[in-house]
Amino acid sequence: MTHPYRTHTCGALTAAATGHTVRLSGWVHRKRDHGGVLFVDLRDHYGITQVVADSDSPALPLLEAVRLESVITIEGEVKARNAATVNPNLATGEIEVFARAVTVLSRAEELPMPVAGEQEYPEDIRLKYRFLDLRRETLHANIVTRTKIIRDMRNRMEEAGFTEYSTPILTASSPEGARDFLVPSRIHPGKFYALPQAPQQYKQLLMVAGFDRYFQIAPCFRDEDPRADRLPGEFYQLDLEMSFVTQEEVWETMEPVIGQVFEAFAQGKSVTPVGQFRRIPHAQAMLDYGSDKPDLRNPLIIRDVSSEFTQSGFGLFEKIVGSGGVVRAIPAPNTAEKSRKFFDEMNDWARAEGHAGLGYVTRKAGEFGGPIAKNHGPEKMAALYDTLGLGPDDGLFFAAGKEEQAGKLAGLARTRVADTLGLIDKDRFELAWIVDFPFYEWDEDNKKVDFAHNPFSMPQGGMEALEGSDPLSIKAFQYDLVCNGYEIASGSIRNQSPELMVKAFELVGLSKADVEERFGGLYRAFQYGAPPHGGMAAGVDRIVMLLCGVQNLREISLFPMNQRAEDLLMGAPTPAEPKQLRELHMRVVEPVKPAAVSTSKLVAPDAG
Amino acid sequence: MTHPYRTHTCGALTAAATGHTVRLSGWVHRKRDHGGVLFVDLRDHYGITQVVADSDSPALPLLEAVRLESVITIEGEVKARNAATVNPNLATGEIEVFARAVTVLSRAEELPMPVAGEQEYPEDIRLKYRFLDLRRETLHANIVTRTKIIRDMRNRMEEAGFTEYSTPILTASSPEGARDFLVPSRIHPGKFYALPQAPQQYKQLLMVAGFDRYFQIAPCFRDEDPRADRLPGEFYQLDLEMSFVTQEEVWETMEPVIGQVFEAFAQGKSVTPVGQFRRIPHAQAMLDYGSDKPDLRNPLIIRDVSSEFTQSGFGLFEKIVGSGGVVRAIPAPNTAEKSRKFFDEMNDWARAEGHAGLGYVTRKAGEFGGPIAKNHGPEKMAALYDTLGLGPDDGLFFAAGKEEQAGKLAGLARTRVADTLGLIDKDRFELAWIVDFPFYEWDEDNKKVDFAHNPFSMPQGGMEALEGSDPLSIKAFQYDLVCNGYEIASGSIRNQSPELMVKAFELVGLSKADVEERFGGLYRAFQYGAPPHGGMAAGVDRIVMLLCGVQNLREISLFPMNQRAEDLLMGAPTPAEPKQLRELHMRVVEPVKPAAVSTSKLVAPDAG
Repeated sequence: MTHPYRTHTCGALTAAATGHTVRLSGWVHRKRDHGGVLFVDLRDHYGITQVVADSDSPALPLLEAVRLESVITIEGEVKARNAATVNPNLATGEIEVFARAVTVLSRAEELPMPVAGEQEYPEDIRLKYRFLDLRRETLHANIVTRTKIIRDMRNRMEEAGFTEYSTPILTASSPEGARDFLVPSRIHPGKFYALPQAPQQYKQLLMVAGFDRYFQIAPCFRDEDPRADRLPGEFYQLDLEMSFVTQEEVWETMEPVIGQVFEAFAQGKSVTPVGQFRRIPHAQAMLDYGSDKPDLRNPLIIRDVSSEFTQSGFGLFEKIVGSGGVVRAIPAPNTAEKSRKFFDEMNDWARAEGHAGLGYVTRKAGEFGGPIAKNHGPEKMAALYDTLGLGPDDGLFFAAGKEEQAGKLAGLARTRVADTLGLIDKDRFELAWIVDFPFYEWDEDNKKVDFAHNPFSMPQGGMEALEGSDPLSIKAFQYDLVCNGYEIASGSIRNQSPELMVKAFELVGLSKADVEERFGGLYRAFQYGAPPHGGMAAGVDRIVMLLCGVQNLREISLFPMNQRAEDLLMGAPTPAEPKQLRELHMRVVEPVKPAAVSTSKLVAPDAG
Repeated sequence: MTHPYRTHTCGALTAAATGHTVRLSGWVHRKRDHGGVLFVDLRDHYGITQVVADSDSPALPLLEAVRLESVITIEGEVKARNAATVNPNLATGEIEVFARAVTVLSRAEELPMPVAGEQEYPEDIRLKYRFLDLRRETLHANIVTRTKIIRDMRNRMEEAGFTEYSTPILTASSPEGARDFLVPSRIHPGKFYALPQAPQQYKQLLMVAGFDRYFQIAPCFRDEDPRADRLPGEFYQLDLEMSFVTQEEVWETMEPVIGQVFEAFAQGKSVTPVGQFRRIPHAQAMLDYGSDKPDLRNPLIIRDVSSEFTQSGFGLFEKIVGSGGVVRAIPAPNTAEKSRKFFDEMNDWARAEGHAGLGYVTRKAGEFGGPIAKNHGPEKMAALYDTLGLGPDDGLFFAAGKEEQAGKLAGLARTRVADTLGLIDKDRFELAWIVDFPFYEWDEDNKKVDFAHNPFSMPQGGMEALEGSDPLSIKAFQYDLVCNGYEIASGSIRNQSPELMVKAFELVGLSKADVEERFGGLYRAFQYGAPPHGGMAAGVDRIVMLLCGVQNLREISLFPMNQRAEDLLMGAPTPAEPKQLRELHMRVVEPVKPAAVSTSKLVAPDAG
């Protein structure tokens, strides 16, 4: 026993060690005094071991006195527990260690928050004392799971023939989808580096440089205003790119990687089998699910029923359809026993969300109810039900209006109806590809065509499409991977032709000079032999969150900032020293009014 | 053959494929026209395949016309080469592909620099067109080797029970060894994040948070002035930390990891066997090698010969020794045939380096030469030679003066003598631990005691030493790993006691309040149960450089900045938009005079 701290970790001892003298080190997790017999749960990274001391033990007084979360070393004898006291939930539950000697390695002050028991605690305390928070069982386990998931991703990527390359973190500001973090240059007064929002241009440059099958667990940085589903500052994506590929090859390569990662960490939940991920065209997803990131655990399918209302006794829908709008129907199966309140509350919710409202039809034993059924007429309504395949006890909601708004409302209603009716199976991970995204979209604010997603993507149909089609009808070789209502990955085949690139930008009103100025490195590279290439990026944090079954990124992140973008543990951000500012040729300007919040949407790189 | 680009990569085809029709895609690497028969070397990430076209091939005109480095797809028939034309140096050297059809996927413009042949090219062209530079065989291979070395490090760390955790990149400025890169906060006017110089504090916090065996291939950032052996901006270290360890356990854990990484990539060079890394106390290294990062391939050992000159006919040395200085001797074996010029040039070099000079004794067949031997007397010199174990044809150099300067000169002379005499075996990697670094040093500028290296280190002897010893005599549990004259890793056992931390800082003139202000997160954490912990950090770039046998970090880095800290490919840094500066509450101040160059040496974290 020459090691001063431990012969075993706190997760190692079993009945096989009975009678051995051991040394353990760890944190005092819990203490229980059973009248002269003291039980101490000693905890380290690997587990918990029960330590016992009674009046025979010289260690008793010190153990009695030591505060929870102090770090101690104990020396003692391993004893088998009797059958009644064996703890099958603990790896070391067969034994306990009778303490002969104890050394306090580090005394804990009075704790600002408890560790054992994991009671709820305010976020600012948890973040300021993150080193205590991280000792708590669930968070500790989530962080370990996170590292295992990332390791598993890495291994599977390498097995799939990918190589990990690190791309620069101090790089050029580029007009991408969100706001850059800037880093002032000391050597070049008035100039700035930017932290990458994604390694988009570098990974494409890697392909042009003749590498192939690149991946990276890549830190990405966006200076965005706080959002519930994104931590301020940095996040990680599984970023990848391949040369000489079609989009099908990207899907066939990545479906096993992502699918098997899910399988490995699903903890008993079912996962869409690899090879069976659906490939849903974007337009179909928008119609059937009212969303480009549908939750496919939800069995409800939206149907367009506009044509049923071209002539209807329900004048509102007739008018909407007559003026180019749509009516979308969302089934509410087996709602015969639901009260009127159920339907009215859904309508109230839609109004609260800023929509005109959510119409509905009730049905009980074949009998229709509600004003829409009455005005439209029961025969026509019955015919509509037949068309939709609905039964005598199914209700039906309607979202009507301009296509984009009605579609979106239908999508939200689909989720809400299924949630309320308990139709979503929480024990499944449903994965699918959403494909054929539109290349352009109409920018209503600026009354012009703009890129819908990623201007680096290849438009389907190439130059012919760009020259001969309505831009809004052009699709891109662009795709997302979705799971349970979340986008977990996004990618595309890239436009690697300088001529096509110039033409594509021309249609959003940008010149060749603009392209050269904004994406000079990449545009230049495409002049010297660029292979067809494509890839994607998966959101590591999002995937870990899904697999850990938590709702907040803070539950799977080591040292997150708070929603005010502050690191309460390290005290960042801080004022700079005058000397530092001088060296950086910067002066702080006190704000006179709140800074405008606006993001240019010129370029959205692959993003999870 | 449904894949539009390739049935095989350019590194895949062997004689087994003879007769098959294949499709290949890649870059036109070389073309050779043998009178109507055109040979094209087609290159991709995986290799080179020889493509042939003659007048029978419809592909000939296009192949003749296409410029080098264009990307093409060829379709054709695999033919076995005859014995005379088989190329054993090429994986695909058994075959060639007779091209039937060719498609140009991407036309190359006139090249700013050639790819094949790898002729030397100016650095600014290489960096601006890095995507071409990276296609070159050696650089491409170095980058791939780099990724393999990092992967190998990761795997070995995981096998050793370590888990990779990513620590924040946007963090707090801390007064560490070098200058921070600052990132202005948009939400908090006048405040800044800093990019980490190393994850030192976070990895220690991880240990306090109850994790164990952390590692990370960690990006680190230092805003330092250009140095030959460090690229501007970012670099990577293999960073690690362990709980409940002694320094011996760190060495025993990491020696196999680093040693086996070297063995795996040594390419035939010998590597100090794992388990046989010498552990050389810092003081001994300074004496024997005149350096704390000795090149142990160099067989020369410096000897302190001060006591030989307390009474000497050579007055200069007598005077130096008499006034507390030292005389160090550097053997120059088998230099009997060297001319006087060899010795004089060494003396000239020492003067050029700013030293007083390098004395010497020549010896030929037992006969001494030079003024020192003459004045000191041949008998006493012969006795000295006996003491040093030198022979009748060995010369001897002397570095004399104050200990620090003489020691340093002796170290440089040891290297230069061995280099000049060809005594350094280039086919070896000699690895050793340098241990027992001093905790404090004398800061001559400020006439006070300062931390010698890492103030987070544990002083040997603990509180007793801090309270009762001459500070300059205290050693730290601090160590380096050196290889062939380079420091490749550095680490320590940490001081995790708040009381010891306050005391250690007190001795350099800093108060408890200073400690709380500068290292608040860590100091606070130590109040709530901190395990004994320690670790190290190895310089990934340095190790890759050694293993690739290159002299410049640019030869093993993907997208390096130039020595002016500019990314010539992406054009960073760039001026910011006025809107960006407004949002960041910053104004650029034109410099009025050159910025002062100075770095505080308060804290040096683990650094490779």
